[in-house]
Amino acid sequence: MSRSLGDIVGALGGELVGNASLQIARLAPLATARADELSFVAQARYAVQIQTTEAGALIVPASLKDAASSRGTCIVCEDPYLYFARLTQWWKAQHEPAEEPRVDPGARIHPSAVIGDRVSIGPFAVVGPGARIGDGARIGPHCIVGRDAAIGEGTLLYAQVSVGDRCVVGQRCILHPGVVIGADGFGFAPHQGEWVKIEQLGAVRIGDEVEIGANTCIDRGALDDTVIGNGVKLDNLIQIGHNVRIGDHTAMAGCVGVAGTATIGAHCSVGGGAIVLGHLTLADRVNISAATVVTRSIHQPGLYTGMFPIDDNAAWEKNAASLKQLGRLRERVRALEQRTDNDHTK
Amino acid sequence: MSRSLGDIVGALGGELVGNASLQIARLAPLATARADELSFVAQARYAVQIQTTEAGALIVPASLKDAASSRGTCIVCEDPYLYFARLTQWWKAQHEPAEEPRVDPGARIHPSAVIGDRVSIGPFAVVGPGARIGDGARIGPHCIVGRDAAIGEGTLLYAQVSVGDRCVVGQRCILHPGVVIGADGFGFAPHQGEWVKIEQLGAVRIGDEVEIGANTCIDRGALDDTVIGNGVKLDNLIQIGHNVRIGDHTAMAGCVGVAGTATIGAHCSVGGGAIVLGHLTLADRVNISAATVVTRSIHQPGLYTGMFPIDDNAAWEKNAASLKQLGRLRERVRALEQRTDNDHTK
Amino acid sequence: MSRSLGDIVGALGGELVGNASLQIARLAPLATARADELSFVAQARYAVQIQTTEAGALIVPASLKDAASSRGTCIVCEDPYLYFARLTQWWKAQHEPAEEPRVDPGARIHPSAVIGDRVSIGPFAVVGPGARIGDGARIGPHCIVGRDAAIGEGTLLYAQVSVGDRCVVGQRCILHPGVVIGADGFGFAPHQGEWVKIEQLGAVRIGDEVEIGANTCIDRGALDDTVIGNGVKLDNLIQIGHNVRIGDHTAMAGCVGVAGTATIGAHCSVGGGAIVLGHLTLADRVNISAATVVTRSIHQPGLYTGMFPIDDNAAWEKNAASLKQLGRLRERVRALEQRTDNDHTK
Repeated sequence: MSRSLGDIVGALGGELVGNASLQIARLAPLATARADELSFVAQARYAVQIQTTEAGALIVPASLKDAASSRGTCIVCEDPYLYFARLTQWWKAQHEPAEEPRVDPGARIHPSAVIGDRVSIGPFAVVGPGARIGDGARIGPHCIVGRDAAIGEGTLLYAQVSVGDRCVVGQRCILHPGVVIGADGFGFAPHQGEWVKIEQLGAVRIGDEVEIGANTCIDRGALDDTVIGNGVKLDNLIQIGHNVRIGDHTAMAGCVGVAGTATIGAHCSVGGGAIVLGHLTLADRVNISAATVVTRSIHQPGLYTGMFPIDDNAAWEKNAASLKQLGRLRERVRALEQRTDNDHTK
Repeated sequence: MSRSLGDIVGALGGELVGNASLQIARLAPLATARADELSFVAQARYAVQIQTTEAGALIVPASLKDAASSRGTCIVCEDPYLYFARLTQWWKAQHEPAEEPRVDPGARIHPSAVIGDRVSIGPFAVVGPGARIGDGARIGPHCIVGRDAAIGEGTLLYAQVSVGDRCVVGQRCILHPGVVIGADGFGFAPHQGEWVKIEQLGAVRIGDEVEIGANTCIDRGALDDTVIGNGVKLDNLIQIGHNVRIGDHTAMAGCVGVAGTATIGAHCSVGGGAIVLGHLTLADRVNISAATVVTRSIHQPGLYTGMFPIDDNAAWEKNAASLKQLGRLRERVRALEQRTDNDHTK
Repeated sequence: MSRSLGDIVGALGGELVGNASLQIARLAPLATARADELSFVAQARYAVQIQTTEAGALIVPASLKDAASSRGTCIVCEDPYLYFARLTQWWKAQHEPAEEPRVDPGARIHPSAVIGDRVSIGPFAVVGPGARIGDGARIGPHCIVGRDAAIGEGTLLYAQVSVGDRCVVGQRCILHPGVVIGADGFGFAPHQGEWVKIEQLGAVRIGDEVEIGANTCIDRGALDDTVIGNGVKLDNLIQIGHNVRIGDHTAMAGCVGVAGTATIGAHCSVGGGAIVLGHLTLADRVNISAATVVTRSIHQPGLYTGMFPIDDNAAWEKNAASLKQLGRLRERVRALEQRTDNDHTK
């Protein structure tokens, strides 16, 4: 299953310095790579590892060409991390060639559904009335595509994905197992101590090239749709509330929660476990640190953080106790300042 | 698919001021509503928008009747938000009429299961031995109802819901896709550095009119049952540990975690991403802010909060560093106070 | 369905003091146990309840033998909590005897899959090409075992579990409903404001006696595998990123998120809702409190905490506002100190 460096450079470009016939058995991290493995050095700060790695060949930027070529074979390119990303795609395509499209006879496809060309549908999948499946889409086992829902061309739904009625997923998207698109948003009117359900009449619209991680949920809108822009990347176990809008190419790490009617700009990032409260607006290019709670709109690009620093438990307990006295401490400092001022003006 | 205002008021009541034959094509938010759309103004603070909205008609409280009727057609009622909730229910029923109940031949139903009247069971659903499905219940595709489990009358399980053995779901509940009821609680006895499993012998009992969001999990009890009261509303991706008890009409937003054996009162609310530690008690009408960690029992109704305020990263770093010196800072203030006291008593 | 105390001691050992023929109908918590129920007292601090409980019999340590036997029948053993754990296992086995293994004809098993002896496979399960299912394993309904994946001997997959291609689950593991093993790790290279996918070429390797809670996700590695050690216990709704390594017998409570390439030692514990950032190392026997964010590697065993203490909302608001002035407050204290020093050295 190995490939020669010459084949790799033939497919992906870059300047090959050294042995084009070297056979690469595997892509590997720099620290553990061996003689039949290919690794990459994206940043100058890892340059020191060039001398110690046992990798058979390295992908490096021009600035590290001399260092890399003096130790052995290398591929020189503009952006080694990007090159590496494309290499993983090429590698996967080489080793896991696409299967012939096939609609499983054990899938349940409504006669009124419109199925494109070269579509795969797995066993026990359910495609509802009026649903449309674009050309080349792959619907995994146990997936559900609801009534009048649409799956774009080339989109991949792994297993056990649920796309609710009328929801739309764009082209070339990837939805991992357990994703739920279009469950009801969380909307209730209080009435005499009980909750009266507000039916969620909107849907979910997802752009192109969106990737959604395992067990992530995106609720349908109350009246308007919940909207996910093009190129958005969501990790696992994320909750996106109703009527949220996420701009193009924004990325969120695992366990993030975005409450209803939040509007998040394009090219933003949200770290793992962060919470964005409802009805807020985040501008384009806002970056939120992990585990941070966004309690107000943010109108300027930048990095924003709020998290209690970790400490050994005894130190934390002491500081947390002091924290609850912080308002009082400020008053004490103010009193000291006034007293000292008085002394000096006496 | 439009409906006249006269039809709406005929079905839901309220005082119609203006044009009863106006056709409403859609319910819409106040800010974006157009001439064929109906919106609502629940609170006086949105009154200013009455003059600018392009909505064809408005639902308003009596206090806004003059302002609303001077601009055009309106429905006057006691509680516009409640009216709106009921309107969404009526609207959905008009536009998505209930399907005829149908038990799919591709479902796997154990012969000893007891299936009520007018029940729907979707393709590839599995209903175990001794399970009971109440009249009018709807069991979606890929759902699993375990051995001796019970689903109440009129309850809706969307797709891919798992209800474990002996668990009971009440009447008129809604369980969204991916919900897991009755997985084992997290119980282990430590022994020589390893964990010995404590089998979870209890079950889960869920009251009536409970709604449970996508991919939310409620674990079975260790010995007693985990109990969810009537009218409880749980959003998506919530974790409810074993032996938890949640009182009637309590609501929890997404990503909440409630650890084992916590007892939460009735009419409580828990904000998104909050964590409630185990073995605690929350009184009735306790409200927990988003992302707050409940580390002690709370015996008084009220709003409780604990979260690190978000800031730009540089400011946060500075304050977080200071926070770790907070105990020391208090000591320094105390020293200053003593010194100043000494000076003054010299 | 009751069992005599004599039967219990015959099966599990311990010294029986009192009535061996007493019939036990149920295991119950100490506080609510009744005359036909058996309970346990693990710690001396619960000793006071020995006099008030109505339990028919008690499991106690030697130190409480006199107190317990003076009130009635008891089982004396070295570690009552461990005894209780084993008792729950025995009790479950008595009351839910194992079913005869059965491969459902409605499961979809690829001809090239290798199925061991006494394997159960539920309806609508899908076992891919080259997959191996070990002897005595049980694969629940709607589970998916991917291409070339392996499930170890005696392992139980409840319903709707997805094990991705080439992933390996060890022996005697338990995976609860909705678990996703081997979704793609979250890896993208930035390029001109967009994200280029890094195909995840690794897999997931899970040791023996691992238990994984409902809807928990473990992503496959980018190049190397994600590795979960023996005896690891993960609660519900946990996210484990790509290339994470978790040492033997580590336990994590619900809603934890572990970012990519974190290395967590053996015998660690991570409390509910905690977040571990990527590329960090935690030593063996590190304990992380609930809702704590681990932002740096931890090299010493111990308990580590970081969470904002909960307070009533008004007090929190005041302290949170002060917190944002904390850097400034330190400067003011420093100024006071210098001023006082100057006064004293004048």
